[in-house]
Amino acid sequence: MERDRRRVWHGFTQMAAYADNRPVIVERADGREVVDVDGRRYLDAISSLWVTTLGHRVAELDAALVAQAQRVAHTTLLGNGNSVVVELAEDLAAVVPVDDPRFLFASDGATAVEQALKIAFQYWWNRGVKGRDRYLVLGSAYHGDTIGSLSLGDGGFGTDLFDPLRFSGTRRTPGYRDPDWLAKARSVLDAEGAGLAAVVLEPVVQGAAGMYVADPEDVATLVRAAQDVGVLVVCDEVATGFGRTGAMFASDLAGLRPDLMCIGKGLAGGYLPMSATVASGRVAAAFDGADLGPRTFYHGHSFGGNALAAAVARRHLALFAEWDVLANVSARAAQLGAGLEASVADLPGVGQIRRCGLMAGIELDPPDDGLRWGRRVCAEAVEQGVLLRPLGDVVVLVPILTSTEAEIDRIVATLASAVETVCR
Amino acid sequence: MERDRRRVWHGFTQMAAYADNRPVIVERADGREVVDVDGRRYLDAISSLWVTTLGHRVAELDAALVAQAQRVAHTTLLGNGNSVVVELAEDLAAVVPVDDPRFLFASDGATAVEQALKIAFQYWWNRGVKGRDRYLVLGSAYHGDTIGSLSLGDGGFGTDLFDPLRFSGTRRTPGYRDPDWLAKARSVLDAEGAGLAAVVLEPVVQGAAGMYVADPEDVATLVRAAQDVGVLVVCDEVATGFGRTGAMFASDLAGLRPDLMCIGKGLAGGYLPMSATVASGRVAAAFDGADLGPRTFYHGHSFGGNALAAAVARRHLALFAEWDVLANVSARAAQLGAGLEASVADLPGVGQIRRCGLMAGIELDPPDDGLRWGRRVCAEAVEQGVLLRPLGDVVVLVPILTSTEAEIDRIVATLASAVETVCR
Repeated sequence: MERDRRRVWHGFTQMAAYADNRPVIVERADGREVVDVDGRRYLDAISSLWVTTLGHRVAELDAALVAQAQRVAHTTLLGNGNSVVVELAEDLAAVVPVDDPRFLFASDGATAVEQALKIAFQYWWNRGVKGRDRYLVLGSAYHGDTIGSLSLGDGGFGTDLFDPLRFSGTRRTPGYRDPDWLAKARSVLDAEGAGLAAVVLEPVVQGAAGMYVADPEDVATLVRAAQDVGVLVVCDEVATGFGRTGAMFASDLAGLRPDLMCIGKGLAGGYLPMSATVASGRVAAAFDGADLGPRTFYHGHSFGGNALAAAVARRHLALFAEWDVLANVSARAAQLGAGLEASVADLPGVGQIRRCGLMAGIELDPPDDGLRWGRRVCAEAVEQGVLLRPLGDVVVLVPILTSTEAEIDRIVATLASAVETVCR
Repeated sequence: MERDRRRVWHGFTQMAAYADNRPVIVERADGREVVDVDGRRYLDAISSLWVTTLGHRVAELDAALVAQAQRVAHTTLLGNGNSVVVELAEDLAAVVPVDDPRFLFASDGATAVEQALKIAFQYWWNRGVKGRDRYLVLGSAYHGDTIGSLSLGDGGFGTDLFDPLRFSGTRRTPGYRDPDWLAKARSVLDAEGAGLAAVVLEPVVQGAAGMYVADPEDVATLVRAAQDVGVLVVCDEVATGFGRTGAMFASDLAGLRPDLMCIGKGLAGGYLPMSATVASGRVAAAFDGADLGPRTFYHGHSFGGNALAAAVARRHLALFAEWDVLANVSARAAQLGAGLEASVADLPGVGQIRRCGLMAGIELDPPDDGLRWGRRVCAEAVEQGVLLRPLGDVVVLVPILTSTEAEIDRIVATLASAVETVCR
């Protein structure tokens, strides 16, 4: 831990307090458990920050990785192709809720959002439409930390200091925590729709905001209203994609057909960095033009379409179907909901519980500021062998999608015990 | 190729012209050659867009990948650690020209730049210094395609349409193609240094601009002048790092000690997406504060510090020393320079040749616009079995660092033949 603190700068982490917050220094992992350098085992109840889908050390994914390594690890997609990436794109095309989809790959999720916002912007420019240059975005939104993604997001996390670097062309209406969010978004859409390039939203679940959940029907209503007036719809499914919400994509819960979709995290099973911006054929067609001409999308990342990640992602997608992972998510999600209701909801110190599929937020309700209940409850759970990480005073549960009944029970029991220990 | 065009959106590529530009659809690779789906072999003279360092299918790197897969593919660095990442950071600390370095990992190179520009911005905010909120940046600069990186870069590539999304706090002076670039940058530094957060530059080589090379002494002079007046220096070594220029980092050519450095591309040997922002201990110390407090850097990417990439990167760094890769770069770079001078420089249609280490740009000089000489020369070279890709009418050569004498000869001969075929 001391060697770690000395050389590694951890994201979203106060390094001066790092050692005090019970970090787990992982050396290896196995199924749904990580093992630290001292051999202690922890049940991973955050999916290594929402990326691990089927578990660690999945034999089939390991085999796909090794097989691809025997062909090639990586070649560029800028102006050239790679056969495993073509195959992955075809496989993904069968499951994404986007019409005639095209896949522009990158590695970081934030980068997929940057690509989407730039594509939406250039779409109107290419079509010669002036004045459609603003984005309708939601309160509490989180789309990543690069400047463009941060501009679409709603601050928080102490990022207001970067306001001078954010672009100003956003129109923000309240997020899902406001019961009237839909009406407020619609009224802006009705009044200012002609000036909007796109509506950007996290469909159904605003995860980093603290797991606020919208009625899928409300989301569908907004999206239909936007598409009716020609505004592009960008669904950021980096957190919600690949089964977390109980459907393959949260967009599926609401029956959406977004024009642009961002995917990441679980795309390669949480094994390797891979993200993508998915564009409908109609959006992509607006970029067709003369070679080297101005309609081209001049944007590309060196490792977009990494072959090793693509091979793992292909096998991952096949396992999703073979194992009927969504059926397990559905059963475990119902169990998690019932367990939290029965064992956690009524504990002193617990406020609201919010959940969609296997994404849950337990909002603690500390009597005073500065008690750091979120931190301390999670540290206590880690001490008891369940790896958790809070968002402020919201304890977040994002179990691995293949979790067993016994593991969900253990997560709930450990959380209840940790809350009882800390919040008294 | 048809299946590719239908589903994969390639970066920096006009998809309507994709099939006409002789794309290579890679199925596997081997050493310094890639093999397409029809079994045709191509010598990779662009290092798969500047990322491949030691070659494809390097047995030692493959072994490191497989060994790490048997431990764990990925666990989060947000608030927790992973032992292989600690070891990688310690190994890197021994070679980066940054004092008491800290490593904040991400995956895309652009993201490493975003992290650096935000760290530089918050550094002054954390220290309570007001008004140091601008960046001195160079003409023709390229730092990536996300909005923050694009804001530091100098447009071109048809990206001016995104100006409304760029932040305005930059002060741009001419790039290395201007012989007076240093004097012009110094005069701005002298006049406006107190308002600058940072100077951001690609040390010695502006690669994407078309391989413009500065005198390392001039770069050193600017950096010293900036550091003398307290301005942070950010060196973007995403393209120049890991041996390309003949030194481990281009900063080493000039004896620089940047406050922040961005690395990517070759970091994991070109196998896997991995980038990092390197901060000096002095910069990082400005972020120490209370847990959950405002001095923390609230920024982090899910796959930052991916364990598979870290294991490959560690072995890659060891091989660099074991194989004395820099000695080969030095010999091959001299050979490449002499070969271009002897066989290419005087051909009709060839303008300036620029080179630093194994990064070279051959600027063609077409008599009319629209002849697409860069495109056509590269397509002809590909037809002859050498994979090239141009930057406009600049043919770029970035051979793999382990290239043999015979391979460099072949690259030069093929380029000469292609130029003679096209530029008559």
